[in-house]
Order: sequence, then structure tokens, then C-alpha cells
Amino acid sequence: GRSHLRLKSSPQLRSVRASSIFAPTDSFARRHVGPLDSADTEHMLKTLGSASIDALVADVIPDKILTRRPLSVQPQNGFSESELTARLKEIANKNTVLRSYIGAGYYGTVVPPVIQRNILECPEWYTSYTPYQPEISQGRLESLLNYQTLVTDLTGMSIANASLLDEGTAAAEAMLLSFNALRGKKKTYYVDSSVHPQTLSCIKSRALVFDIKIVQELPSDDKELFGAVAQYPSTDGSINDFSELGARVHAAGGLFSVASDLLALTLLKPPSEFKADIVFGTSQRFGVPMGYGGPHAAFFAAADSQKRKIPGRLVGVSKDRLGDDAYRLALQTREQHIRREKATSNICTAQALLANMAAMYAVYHGPKGLQKIASRVYSLTSVLATAIKSLQYKIVNETWFDTLTVEVADADKILSHAVSMFGINLRKIDSKLVAVSIDETVTKPDVLDLVSIFANLSDVPHASVTEDTLDDIAGTLAISVIKPAIIPESFRRAGKILNYKVFNSYHTETEMLRYIHHLQTKDLSLANSMIPLGSCTMKLNATTQMAPLSWPQFSNLHPFIPRDQAQGYTELIAELEADLADITGFDATSLQPNSGAQGEYTGLRVIKAYLEAIGQSQRNVCLIPVSAHGTNPASAVMAGMKVVAVKCTAEGELDILDLETKAEKHKDELAALMVTYPSTFGVFEPRVKDAVNIVHDRGGQVYMDGANMNAQIGLCSPGDIGVDVCHLNLHKTFCIPHGGGGPGVGPICVKSHLAPFLPGHPVVSMAGDEMAAIQPVAAAPWGSASILTISWAYIKMMGGKGIIRSTEYALLNANYMAERLREHYPILYKNAEGRCAHEFIVDIRGFKDSADIEAIDVAKRLQDYGFHAPTMSWPVAGTLMIEPTESESLAELDRFCDAMIAIREEIREIEQGSQPKDINVLKNSPHSIKDLMRGDWDRPYSREKAAFPLPYLRERKFWPSVTRLNDTYGDLNLFCTCEPLALENID
Amino acid sequence: GRSHLRLKSSPQLRSVRASSIFAPTDSFARRHVGPLDSADTEHMLKTLGSASIDALVADVIPDKILTRRPLSVQPQNGFSESELTARLKEIANKNTVLRSYIGAGYYGTVVPPVIQRNILECPEWYTSYTPYQPEISQGRLESLLNYQTLVTDLTGMSIANASLLDEGTAAAEAMLLSFNALRGKKKTYYVDSSVHPQTLSCIKSRALVFDIKIVQELPSDDKELFGAVAQYPSTDGSINDFSELGARVHAAGGLFSVASDLLALTLLKPPSEFKADIVFGTSQRFGVPMGYGGPHAAFFAAADSQKRKIPGRLVGVSKDRLGDDAYRLALQTREQHIRREKATSNICTAQALLANMAAMYAVYHGPKGLQKIASRVYSLTSVLATAIKSLQYKIVNETWFDTLTVEVADADKILSHAVSMFGINLRKIDSKLVAVSIDETVTKPDVLDLVSIFANLSDVPHASVTEDTLDDIAGTLAISVIKPAIIPESFRRAGKILNYKVFNSYHTETEMLRYIHHLQTKDLSLANSMIPLGSCTMKLNATTQMAPLSWPQFSNLHPFIPRDQAQGYTELIAELEADLADITGFDATSLQPNSGAQGEYTGLRVIKAYLEAIGQSQRNVCLIPVSAHGTNPASAVMAGMKVVAVKCTAEGELDILDLETKAEKHKDELAALMVTYPSTFGVFEPRVKDAVNIVHDRGGQVYMDGANMNAQIGLCSPGDIGVDVCHLNLHKTFCIPHGGGGPGVGPICVKSHLAPFLPGHPVVSMAGDEMAAIQPVAAAPWGSASILTISWAYIKMMGGKGIIRSTEYALLNANYMAERLREHYPILYKNAEGRCAHEFIVDIRGFKDSADIEAIDVAKRLQDYGFHAPTMSWPVAGTLMIEPTESESLAELDRFCDAMIAIREEIREIEQGSQPKDINVLKNSPHSIKDLMRGDWDRPYSREKAAFPLPYLRERKFWPSVTRLNDTYGDLNLFCTCEPLALENID
Repeated sequence: GRSHLRLKSSPQLRSVRASSIFAPTDSFARRHVGPLDSADTEHMLKTLGSASIDALVADVIPDKILTRRPLSVQPQNGFSESELTARLKEIANKNTVLRSYIGAGYYGTVVPPVIQRNILECPEWYTSYTPYQPEISQGRLESLLNYQTLVTDLTGMSIANASLLDEGTAAAEAMLLSFNALRGKKKTYYVDSSVHPQTLSCIKSRALVFDIKIVQELPSDDKELFGAVAQYPSTDGSINDFSELGARVHAAGGLFSVASDLLALTLLKPPSEFKADIVFGTSQRFGVPMGYGGPHAAFFAAADSQKRKIPGRLVGVSKDRLGDDAYRLALQTREQHIRREKATSNICTAQALLANMAAMYAVYHGPKGLQKIASRVYSLTSVLATAIKSLQYKIVNETWFDTLTVEVADADKILSHAVSMFGINLRKIDSKLVAVSIDETVTKPDVLDLVSIFANLSDVPHASVTEDTLDDIAGTLAISVIKPAIIPESFRRAGKILNYKVFNSYHTETEMLRYIHHLQTKDLSLANSMIPLGSCTMKLNATTQMAPLSWPQFSNLHPFIPRDQAQGYTELIAELEADLADITGFDATSLQPNSGAQGEYTGLRVIKAYLEAIGQSQRNVCLIPVSAHGTNPASAVMAGMKVVAVKCTAEGELDILDLETKAEKHKDELAALMVTYPSTFGVFEPRVKDAVNIVHDRGGQVYMDGANMNAQIGLCSPGDIGVDVCHLNLHKTFCIPHGGGGPGVGPICVKSHLAPFLPGHPVVSMAGDEMAAIQPVAAAPWGSASILTISWAYIKMMGGKGIIRSTEYALLNANYMAERLREHYPILYKNAEGRCAHEFIVDIRGFKDSADIEAIDVAKRLQDYGFHAPTMSWPVAGTLMIEPTESESLAELDRFCDAMIAIREEIREIEQGSQPKDINVLKNSPHSIKDLMRGDWDRPYSREKAAFPLPYLRERKFWPSVTRLNDTYGDLNLFCTCEPLALENID
Repeated sequence: GRSHLRLKSSPQLRSVRASSIFAPTDSFARRHVGPLDSADTEHMLKTLGSASIDALVADVIPDKILTRRPLSVQPQNGFSESELTARLKEIANKNTVLRSYIGAGYYGTVVPPVIQRNILECPEWYTSYTPYQPEISQGRLESLLNYQTLVTDLTGMSIANASLLDEGTAAAEAMLLSFNALRGKKKTYYVDSSVHPQTLSCIKSRALVFDIKIVQELPSDDKELFGAVAQYPSTDGSINDFSELGARVHAAGGLFSVASDLLALTLLKPPSEFKADIVFGTSQRFGVPMGYGGPHAAFFAAADSQKRKIPGRLVGVSKDRLGDDAYRLALQTREQHIRREKATSNICTAQALLANMAAMYAVYHGPKGLQKIASRVYSLTSVLATAIKSLQYKIVNETWFDTLTVEVADADKILSHAVSMFGINLRKIDSKLVAVSIDETVTKPDVLDLVSIFANLSDVPHASVTEDTLDDIAGTLAISVIKPAIIPESFRRAGKILNYKVFNSYHTETEMLRYIHHLQTKDLSLANSMIPLGSCTMKLNATTQMAPLSWPQFSNLHPFIPRDQAQGYTELIAELEADLADITGFDATSLQPNSGAQGEYTGLRVIKAYLEAIGQSQRNVCLIPVSAHGTNPASAVMAGMKVVAVKCTAEGELDILDLETKAEKHKDELAALMVTYPSTFGVFEPRVKDAVNIVHDRGGQVYMDGANMNAQIGLCSPGDIGVDVCHLNLHKTFCIPHGGGGPGVGPICVKSHLAPFLPGHPVVSMAGDEMAAIQPVAAAPWGSASILTISWAYIKMMGGKGIIRSTEYALLNANYMAERLREHYPILYKNAEGRCAHEFIVDIRGFKDSADIEAIDVAKRLQDYGFHAPTMSWPVAGTLMIEPTESESLAELDRFCDAMIAIREEIREIEQGSQPKDINVLKNSPHSIKDLMRGDWDRPYSREKAAFPLPYLRERKFWPSVTRLNDTYGDLNLFCTCEPLALENID
């Protein structure tokens, strides 16, 4: 007989044939691909004069590139949505959710349900883009400013950025900032033993290519010392005064960095008191699930002197056209997309969604609530310390906030006892030392279990503890909720924290919900309209892909647990790695990089490691076309390479002749060519294989930037083209939402000769070759593990056959739009058949003379039409690059085209003189409600024309909440926190 | 040792003392009660001149009523939010989720994830109120119009309402409509054997008090026949042509009703073709989880002749002040809150949230998608029929859509085999008949399992089937996804279905998300601002309470499964029943009623049953104060009682003398007194106990309306006051959200002498006395079981001690507002101490003369200030009744008071002549953006004054999407569906 209770949890990989009547009806592809399940395809092909999609594809992709190699991705026809969910539950149940008190940068936390539901699970928050268009992004800009304020306030620093990728990366950035402050003249960096091991590894990894010497003992003289970093509280739990270290570093002319913990800082003296120049850390425990390693937002704060050197995105206050305060990204000129190889960092992108969650956690709890949580953690740790000491163990650290390091006879034995008898994970420091970290989730029974672990293995005869024992200890220590344990005075923080209105207003769920909702309504997201950003692929982030993020089996795992507790993750990661390798035509994948730029950096590091392994360490020249993403040269520099630019032809193609000349010139030092495909101009270059051969022939490796992978999948692939490594942007091509400016995942796929060099991890044993592996590029072994479920789900629902539909429709949608706009705007860089790839460039430059209109005016005017601007002035200044993705329907494509055409007519009115050049709907765009409600109206156009230029806007209108921002004002008057209460006008 | 893997799932009921350092920090009360965890309480008490909350309570509640009886609710201090979730998971895991192919009105369905996340789990949708204020409710009004269109189109009827409580209630309404159509002159109603058993019971239950004779055999002559009802497809699965029955009913002058199934109707001839006058049923299988019985939306459609008699809410199209089309509730004058005892029904309230989900399901799938789902269901049923027949079983029904009734040797044996070996529930019809219903979720392995059940117990030797057998059968029947099984021509539907734009536009997830989001932005909900509706208690619906609705252990159970599969529900229901009885001071609870009005009706039916049981069946007079909710007299009439009104004094109190007179006059027929407490005027009447005694002394029972229970909990109780039965509104007092107009739950609590008479169920054996129990009032045994989790969670998080805080702050918040508004508006009906209860009445009548301003003008002007109007003109015409609830913060109370005070100043400007009486900000309110963007502006006030009368509106403004609706136009030109495509102007 069949087994009892065979529930709906085992759909088999060989799913029912799509043509069978038994095939489920909740198939996914038609929900994902805009025009797939309708007659619209025919209309679009007709408009294009193409006989079929195959014919169009043949026009777009050169013969020698187009392979249509069948993918092995299983199931071939894709899971239906409910099958996918059932399969993922099966995988989830292979993860074992125990209690993890491992600490070391990852802590249990209570995600406030109101934040979970209304931010993490809310498409309006997670589908929005990086807030480069501030007028339609005031909500998350305000929230990120709250984050910056939280960080500056708790660290005592002057300025903080809007998050970095993780604590490890932040540490590396701190080192580089210190290194560059002395213009690289000194080469020694001291990493205190108080620093977490994975942080040390990330520092070492980044130091390598700059020949920075990492020391863990202070050198006898400080001549070469350019900086130092210490952790506060320490990785062993102790709290130390680093005044002396700070003074010594400063005396040597260096910068002093401190890794810290925001929760501890609510009670501890801020690092500013021992003169830290930089304070960084993770904000994970502020209500962001551990997620088996990520994504989490790191914070990075600096003293006033480093104000304009701080890496990462920075939200600042500026003025809009009406003179009202408004938020926007400040000092953007520091960023790599502008500074290219001169950027100080390539991997300082942000984790906006997680930073927003952490900021909202602080808003919800407020200063008192946070201090109450911290006091309870400290009190429970103190109770635990007393109990453990009474069992005659030695606790190594004499001071603590949440962590105790305990001397034991056999660390392995105690860890295994803790897991098998109590379902608790502790941290092994070495064979005789274990550590335990108390977090917000810990209850009385948890403390009792922790004490029992030590009691069971103690030398004290008949040691036994009960809840009463704990009450007795609390009583002896005089600890209660009204009178929690008090931090020793030497470390105790004085004065108020977070004395800002926003942190003192929204402490009921109703108020919190309204605040979140209010910010949300200011921001344009995919829930409103298409976001046609060339090179950013803003496609559907389907609910079925997103829902598993909330499952505890994925969200509540510590990244350093024994791997047998994460078998579900292991299975999912293996499948995803294999599918991505299959799709790209490669042999191996690393999922560690937390962003595309980090992927680039990792790929180049892997190439370098390979070249060194084969005795070619002198190779350090990286050829990069001038049309490349700005991150490419920045990454090359970070990876220790010398950038040599390669020209492009007037048609926007790689100048093969120039490439050959440069490759030949540098043939002995040639390390790599970095190339984007289809090109950043949105065209499939037929000669890409020639380029690959030119480089290979001269001993170089070829790196392909995967930003445009959405135009390739299933039709061609980097591997088939012959390149050696590529990165992917899972947050572009594989449906991870952009989160309003992060998270992202930037895995790399490589040919087998590079596989041994994929990054490893100092704490967790990964699958690869631990000797050959490069040092980690991120703090967690698999980077942002929890969101890998999203890309896995996307691939598995489309299936090996279906996923090609996405590519075909990405090409169809873009070509259809280009065709509709062709008569109205010049379209740059089409191929010989007059086709673009998955994106195309609209040229605005001609209107500068005829109407004094620039790309930014069109971009801002599109906001009045309810749209986010396309990519502006990149890769060509004065143009707009449009990428619709396959997810947009014909109706939406037409709506956008209608808007662009209507704007062209508005430009024509200026050209023809019926509207003036200085005051018109474009120059004044975007228009806010406030702007249009003014009583005095002396403009040469009507309110209605400004607000409702097309009929659809009467029914569906998204309102920019402010008018055009003044960037210069904000950068000159840099202000990057909330106004403190004393300055605010509170009645 | 402790057990392996003791995870965080067993918080003990004896939670840690709140004062202990071990107490968790995610406590709930301070998140729920606005001013609880802040210094604001002090400010409010000072404003009131009260020394303490106790002192205020003593002022509000009369000595002899105030008991402060300690509640037994466990845990006393309440669970923290994470403890609650852990405890509820423990309960959930006691429910066993098997596959249920029971059918009979409840079917497995795939809830589209985009609808689940963005409607069911979206506070903007579920916290909104019934759309009585159409200008800020256009989103859900549009969606409900879609629902009506869906129903009229599929049933072939002319008009449909915006949903009813459930299929059973809808059947009862159909009978009553038929009964009343002949003004009650005929008394026989035919219920065809095709009708579901629980529907029959609900019909019988409602028929009882009208002396309607329910027959299941057609009478020999039709003299007494006023109507008939049949089911299509039948409960046994067959599809029958009811033309003959319909003709016979019509010949007798009666109305013919048909229960039907929307999914089947996508393929079947609509009941209009055999001249049905009424078609009703459930829309559950359109993407609404089974939820162990509810909530689900019933539909109710009627022929044109019944247009103005249709029960329930009806959305219609009308015009706004600018002449634009806009939606609003039509023909409201039919409703019981206006018609009182003359209403044709008391329990025709709606299930808006579920109707919206069903409508969106149809929008998402579209006509082709729905027909594809239906065709697959029909095809799989046909395959199953062939397979079962081949095993030499007899299938009773020769035609089918989704259900097969099979003759078996031993029904119990096959049911038990199905559960134990396959985890499948079948339906037992009798000892020799079992039925199986195929639904959308059924897969090939499911069909195989179903066949295997019959194969294993068949007489055919070595009967065995494999997936190949199924493929063979499909092949033999020539069934594939392109060519599904075709309904026999005599029943086959001709022509297009759902040929409306809205059902043919949003079939990708991106488009669907945008449509849902777009509608959402038009509606004001608790996510925007307080909804201070007197008598409706719009308090926080916390995320922790709502989240379990999405757990499959609660959502995926069929109500008729064996009770041992629902042990979690049984435990939760028992705890909730006990807690509600404790809170109200009673002995027993029935959770069956699906709304407050249905609760009233049930309570009175229970009283009647009791009186009959003690030989007092002549007692049928129900005393009801003139101040009562309109539903009270309507319910009394439905329960077969005669209403006698009791006067109120000028102070708004029950006229005890009049009560005594009337009670004495009717003492031999006195059945009951219905009383609301605190009174509908918002005052605790000191003499309520005297009233109770007067009625008891004369042999009557006392019923208390629990609408105002939020002012009593923990301070006093109906039981302590001495009444015999009360109903509760779980959707008011116990945190079930209003869902934009339903669901609701209206349980009744009773003294022990009434307990035996609580309603039973024909299919499921409940706990009570099956002989004494009255017939069910709803289709499912525990009504809307799945949302009981919400109220349970609220009570368990507040705890026996904490829940009193809600009451105290409900009183404090209301009295604080009354105090602030006192100088600006007359406040009616304060008690001797000058206090109100949890709500208070602001008198607007005086402004009619002074400024030509009426209550509606103030109500609509409040929309311009971002607020939903308070309850208008009830219980006193020309007034506004304000109830803030405990969940609002001081800041929000002040914001609302500031708005009311500013409006008073605007009225003063009219009084003083600086603004004209006919054109001013109040008369023209609310102002939409379109209204204020007009180029020509000739009003005596500015745009800014209309839009931003107070500074907070510059930052947070909610915009009404249309201007004031014209109700008369809409009622005169009744139009209650979308415009068909042919009429729409599509380009």
C-alpha cells in the first residue's frame, strides 16, 4: 500500500507534459512574460515586419553567435506555481531550524511583524529601484536618512552612509579609506585580535593586490602603519577601551577603525570617545533575519574629516525647485559609475531594503525600547555568566555585553551535546574554547538550557539547575525589568540616544503601519508602472518567488551552523549553481559575491589567481572598451590590474583593430579583456568571438560582464562564445527585486580551469579546493543565501524550455518600442538589420539647440507621465537607454511610447516657438501637487497640461512628491541626518 | 536528558512575570493601545481633570455596574507576539491537512499568490470599512462591481449583489424573497433533492418562524406553492434541465431559485435559460481558501423583475458633483439600518474582502483562463468516471461537471481506506454512496490515488492502475489540453463569457499587481488615518493576528472533514468559546453566526426555542428601545417576534417607566427585551439592572446587543448585569478587520439555561445537544472558522489582565476627545459626571440655520482633512458619533480634533458672512485633484484652502478620487455592472 498521509509535497521533477490535460493550470511563464499568452505577439511582429519570433531573433543575433543550445535545466517545462511551492517546502524541510547562539556578527532577532509584512513582503518597497530619481523616491530616501541618523547617533560619528554590502566588505573599505588617506605611502595595517575571523579574511583578501601587510601584532615601530582596526565589543565578548590604540595610530598619522554593534552601542560609550575615525558593522540584529548569511545591511560611519571620502551611497538633504527641503543621493560624483577607474571602491553598493528594515526597527522600538532590549540581553548574559561560573568553568572575558567565551575540556564534545540534547548551536573558537551569544529572542527556558549544557558536562557533582536557580541568580544580582544589570561605569554610555522626532513617535503598530504606508505612497515602484532602465532589467519579481523568504527554514539559519543542519540550502545552492553554469555555458559557479561589481572583482581575482598558479603573475593588464560599465575599470583597479582602454567604432562596436593593437602591445602583461555582451549600446556584436581569440592567442583571459545576460539566455551564452568567466546579476536577470537600492547577488561562472580558485571561507568548509581558493570576498560563505531562493524559483518555474521565452520577448519588446519611437527620435546603434538587442538608445542631444531641452528634462517630464526615467546619459551622454524587459505587456509598452511621443510634441511646441525655452512643461518638470495648486498661475501652459497630458493620467496618475531637486545646493551644504529634536519645530 | 530538538514551540501558559528580566520584550499591549507606553496618558488625564484612570472609570461606569471581576483568560499577562505565534503553530500542527475531495460547496482552489499577498495579506485592503463613504472607496467599489458583473454574466441574470454571508444564508434569502413576493399568502416551498444538505437546513431554519412548509416532494397541486429551489449541478453531481420545474413554479405564480456554481457556469448553460428568477451560490472556489468553513462570499443574482427587491449590498454607478461616473452603494434605503423592522432581511450583510478576492481571481484568469480551469476539472472528472466504471462500480449520476456519486459496498470502509492509505477525504452520502469532487488543485497523482482507492476495494481481481492507465483513458476519450472533454450539447454554454475589458486585460502578474495597487490607492483605510466610526470600533488589526490566516493548517481544511483531522481548530475554538464566555460573564458560546445581525437573530431564536421548551411558546413580544440599532427590530421580526418599541428619555436613557408599562401590558406574551449597553447614545445607563429585573419578573428573557462591548470588557459584563444572552462583534471588539465591508463574526454567549439550544449542524456533529439545538443559521458548523484565529490571538496576547487596558483606554480616548471638542460643538448625552463611554455624539443640527451646514457637509469635509467620517445621523439625525478606540495615539486624536475645530472655524466664516452659504469649502467637499486643478477658478476660497487647510496635510494628504456623489441619480438610473466591451470606448 501507499504510505499514510502522502501529502501534496512531492511533485516529481518529470512534470506532466504541457500538452496533457493533467498539466496544472497555474503555469508561470504566461504570468511572467507580458505578451506571451495573448494575440499581442502577432501585432508586435507585424509592426516589426517580422514573420515570427525566430525570424526576429535571427535578425538580432549574429549567426555565429546564435546557438540555441538546449538547456539541461529541470524540469524542462517548468514547475507550476503550486508545484514550485511544494518542491521548495520539501527543500526547506531539509534545513533544521535550531537555536543558534553562535554570534560573531549574526544574531537571532525578532522581526517586528508590521515591518515584515509592510516592507519585506510589500512589493511597493521591494520592487523599487535605487533612488536616483529623488522626486519619486522621497519615501525610501527618508527611511535611509533615518538609517544614517541611527548610525551616526549610536556610533557618535559625524556622517554615515546608507549601508554597505556586509561587515566584511565594510572592514575592507575602512582599510582602503585609511590606505588612500596616506595615498598608499604606508603599507602596514594592524588588525586587532578582537576582530571576527571572517572580517579578518575579507580584509586580507582585499589587501592582497595592494601589497598591504596585515599584522596581528603591533609592530615595534609605527613607521609603516597607516591604520588599525579593532572590534568593540570584541569577538570573544569583552569590552575594551581602545583609547591607547587609537592614540598610537593617530600618532603614526593613520586612521583608526572600529567594528561595532549597534545594539551594544545603545548602552556603551560610542567609539567616538576613543577617537575612532571610522566605525562600521552589521545592522542585521535590528530586525533582519539571519538568512544563512544574508542579505544584511552593513553600516559605515566616519568622523567629520572623512566626510567627502566615505564610500557608498549617501542620502543628503537638498532643496527642490520650490525651495522646499527634499532628500536625494548626495555626492554622487564619488561613485564608480562616474569615476570609473579613479573610484576609491568598486563594491560599495548598498542594501537599501535591509537598511530600511533596520531603520524601521529603530523607529518602532525607539531609544527606550532599544535600550530595554539591550539591557535585557546584557542582564541575561550576566545571569548566564554567574550560573556558568558557579559550575566552576572559567569565563575568559571579564567584561561582556552579550557574549561569553568559556574554557572547556573539549569544545567538540560540548558543541555536540548542545545540538543533540538541546537543539542549540554554540560557537567553537578552538578545541578548548566555546562562545555563546545571547540575543533578543532568548527566553528563560533558553537560558536554562544553556546553563544545563554546561552543567551536564561540568566537574561539579550532581550539578543541576532549574528556572528557580535563574530567578535566584537574578535576585542575587538584583536584576529585574525595572532595574536591569548596569554596564560598568567605565564603558557606560551617558546622555540620551536617538533624540529625534522620528525615533520617538511611532511606537504602536497602528502608528508604525501609517508611517511605513505614508513613505511608501511617495515612491514609484513596479507596482505603479514600468521602470525601463537600460542595463538594469526591472522585470517581474513574482510573489511565488518572494514568499519563501518568510519561511523560518530559510530565514532563521546562522551561516556558521554545522552543514548537516543546512542540507536544504546545500541542495538548493547546488541546483542553482548547476543551472547557472548550464545557462551561461560554464563549468562552475560561486554565489558568494553580493553585487554585480563584487562579482566583477571576484572574477578578476580568480583570473589573477589562475595566472599566478601557472607562473604568469606578471600579467596585469586589463583591456576594457571605453563603452564599458564604469564598474569594470573600477573593479580591475581593485583587483590590482592596470586598465588599458580599447576604442569603439562610430557604430558603437568594439574596435577590433584597436583591440588587436593594444593586445599585441601588452601581450606579455596581458591578463584579461573585460567585455559586455550584448554591448552596453544594446547590440550583439558579430565579431565578439574574434575579440576572444585575439586575447586568448596572447595568453589573456576573457571576462564577460553579465549585465545584459537577459538578452542571451537560451539563445547564446558566454561559454559558447568562448569566454572564461562571467558574472551574473541575479537581481537583474534572475528576478531578485532591486529592493529600492539593494540587495543584489553577483555570482560568477567560470570554465573548469578557473574553478579551483573560486572564493572560500575561513569558518565554513565549502565544497571547493580550500588550498587554491582565493580569500573570501564577502563575510558569509554563500553571500546573500536567503534570496537565492528567488532566482532558483524563477529558473525552476520557467524550466529549461520556457526560460528562452523570456529572452525572446525581451528582444521583441525592445525592438517593438524602438520601432514605434523611430519616427519620433533618433535611435542609436542598431545593427545591420536595423535591430537592437534587449535595449536601445534614444538620442536627445539634437534638442539642445532646437529647444534647449536635454536628456534630464525628458527624464523628469516622464515622471509627470507616471514613469520612471530610463537610464540617463549612459553609455552616451545626452541619451536615454530604454530596456522594457519581457515582463511588460503590450499595453504598458504602448503607454510608455505614447508618453515619449507626447513629450516629443511638447518639444516641438518649443521648437516652433509656441512655448518659451525657459519656462515650459519640460523645464519645470516634474510637477508636484503643491506646485500645481498654487493660486497664482502665470505659466505659459495650464495646470491640466502639466498634470494630465494624456487621458490615461486622469485615471492612473502617480504624483512626484516634490519638484526637481537641486543637486549642487545639497552637495555644497552637505546634511545627512535627521534634524535633532532641539532644532525641530515641535509644537 | 531533555528531548532532542526541543525547538521554540512550547511557551508555557504560565508565562514569565511581566516584572521579571526574563519577560520577552515583544509584548503586545503597548503596541495595541495608543497611549499606553508613553507619557501621553498623564496629559490626557490632566486635560480631563481626572486623577487616574481608575477615577475616570468610576466617573464613567455606575457603581452598581462596575464589577472589575477578574478574568480567567490565560495567560494572565498575555503572550508576547513571538510566544503567541509559537503557541498558535503548536495548535496549527494539531490540524491534519489532507486532500479533501468532499465538495458540497467547498472546493480546493489555488489562491493566486499575487492576490493572496496584495489583498488577503494587505492592510490597505483588509482594514478598510464598508464603503459608505464612496469618495474614498472607489477602489473596492470598482472591485465589487466587477464581482457583480462576474455573477450576472455567468448566471445570465440581470442584477447581482455585492455578496451575501454564505450559500446557506443566500438560500434562505431566496426563499424569503419568494415568500414576500406573494406577500406571504402562500406557505409551501419546494426544495429539490439536488440541494446540498446544509443548504436545506438553513432554509428550514429560516422557514420555521414564518410557518413556511418545506417540502421535498412536489405537492399534488400547487395552490400553496410560492417557490422552489434546485441545485445546478446537483449535490450528487448530475446536471439537470430544470425547465419543467421552473415552468411549474411560474405557473403557480411563484419564483424559481437555482443554487449554482460559478466555475461550472463558465461551461454550462446559465440558469436564466430555464427561467430562474434567482440564482445564488458560493464563490469560494474562485481563489478563496476553504478555511474550515469560511469566510467566503456567497453570490445572489436575480431577474430584472426583482431588481429593487434583491437583498444585500448593491454597488451602482452614479455621477459625482463634476458629472463624472463614480461608484457607490445603491438603494441603501432597502437596508435594515434604515428600514428597521420593515426590512426584508436582517442578515444580508456582505463578505467584501472575499468577494474582492473572487472577483480578482476572475480578472486574473479571464474568460479563457476560467474556462480552461473548468474544462480541466470536467475532463479529469470524466477520466475518473471512466476509470471507476472500468472497475465495475456504478456511478449514480449520468451527467457531471466535477462530482461523481458512486455506489459502494460499504461507504465507511472506503472513506476510512481513503484517509488511512491515501490521505484523501471523500464524501459519505449514505452507507452505500460516496461522492468525490474534482477541483482545480487536482493533479495526475491525485487522480491516480482516487482511482486506486476504488481499485483496492473493488471486486475486480488484481485491479491496478498506473499513470499510464490514466493517459490511456485520456487518449481513448481523446482528451488533451487543446481538446478538453466537451460538455454534452444540451447543457453546453454558447457564446462568449465575461466580455468586459476588466476581465480581458490583467493576465500577467505585473499587470494584476498594478491593477490591485491602483484600486488600493483610491481607498482610505486604517493604514491612512483613524476611522472614528461610532458603534463600529475600528481598532488595530495586528499583523501577528492576521498572519496565521495564510497558514495551510488553517486555510486548507474542508469544514466536513472527520473531526479528528481538525483537533487544532477544536482546541482553539474551545479556548475562544471559554474566553468569550468568561469575558461576557456567560456559560456557553456559539461561534456559528457570520455577522452581528446574524448573531442577534440566533440569540432570539435560542430564546424562542427555550421558551417553547418550557411551554411558553405563546411568548413572542420583543421590547426594543427606539434608540436601538436598526438591526434589532429587523432581527426580532426574522425570529418571528412582534416588536414593541420602548421610549427613551430626553437624556437618551431608556425610559424605565415606559418599559415597565409595556412589559406589564404584554406580560403574558413577553418574550424578550433587546438592549444595547452602553446605550447607542454612548452612555452607561445606571438603571439597566432595573430594566433586566422588570423583564425577568414578567417571564421574559433579556438580550444584550454587544456592539458596544469594547466599553465593558473587564470592567463589567452582560452576565454580571444579569442578561441571558448577548452577541459579540468579533470584527469590532475582537480585532477581526472589517475587510472593506466584511467578513464579520457575530457569536452569541448565553447563560446555561439557553446553552442546549445553541445551533447545530446537519453534517458535522458538534459539541452540543443535537436534539435541542436549533437548526443552523449558517452553512458551516463554526461559521467563519479561519478568522477565529484573529480574535483568539488578540485575547491571548492581551491576557486576562491586559485586556482591561483596552477598555480603559477606549474610555479615556473618547472622553479626551469629547473634552477637546466640547468648546466647539455641543456634545449630546453625557452622564451625570459629564462623561461619555467609549463614544460620543457631536451635534451638527444647530448649523443648519446659522450656516446651512448639515452633518453630511462636515462628514465630507473631513475627507479633505484626510479622515473617514464618523457615524453619521445615527442614532440621532443630524449628528456625528465618534468612537476613537483604544488603538489611536494621542497625536492622532489631536489631529482629528484639530480637523474638527478647523471645520468649526470654516462654519463660522459662513455664519459671519465671509463665505457664502451655497458655495464654500464644506458644501463643495470633498475636493478631488481634478476639481482643484481646473484652470477656471471662481470660488470664494482658494485651492490651497480647499486642499491644505491644516499644515499636516502638506506632508500627509489622502486624496478623495472623486467629488461628492449624487445618490438620487444613481438610484433612479440603476446600473450595477461593468459596461460590456461593445459599449466601451476602446481604442
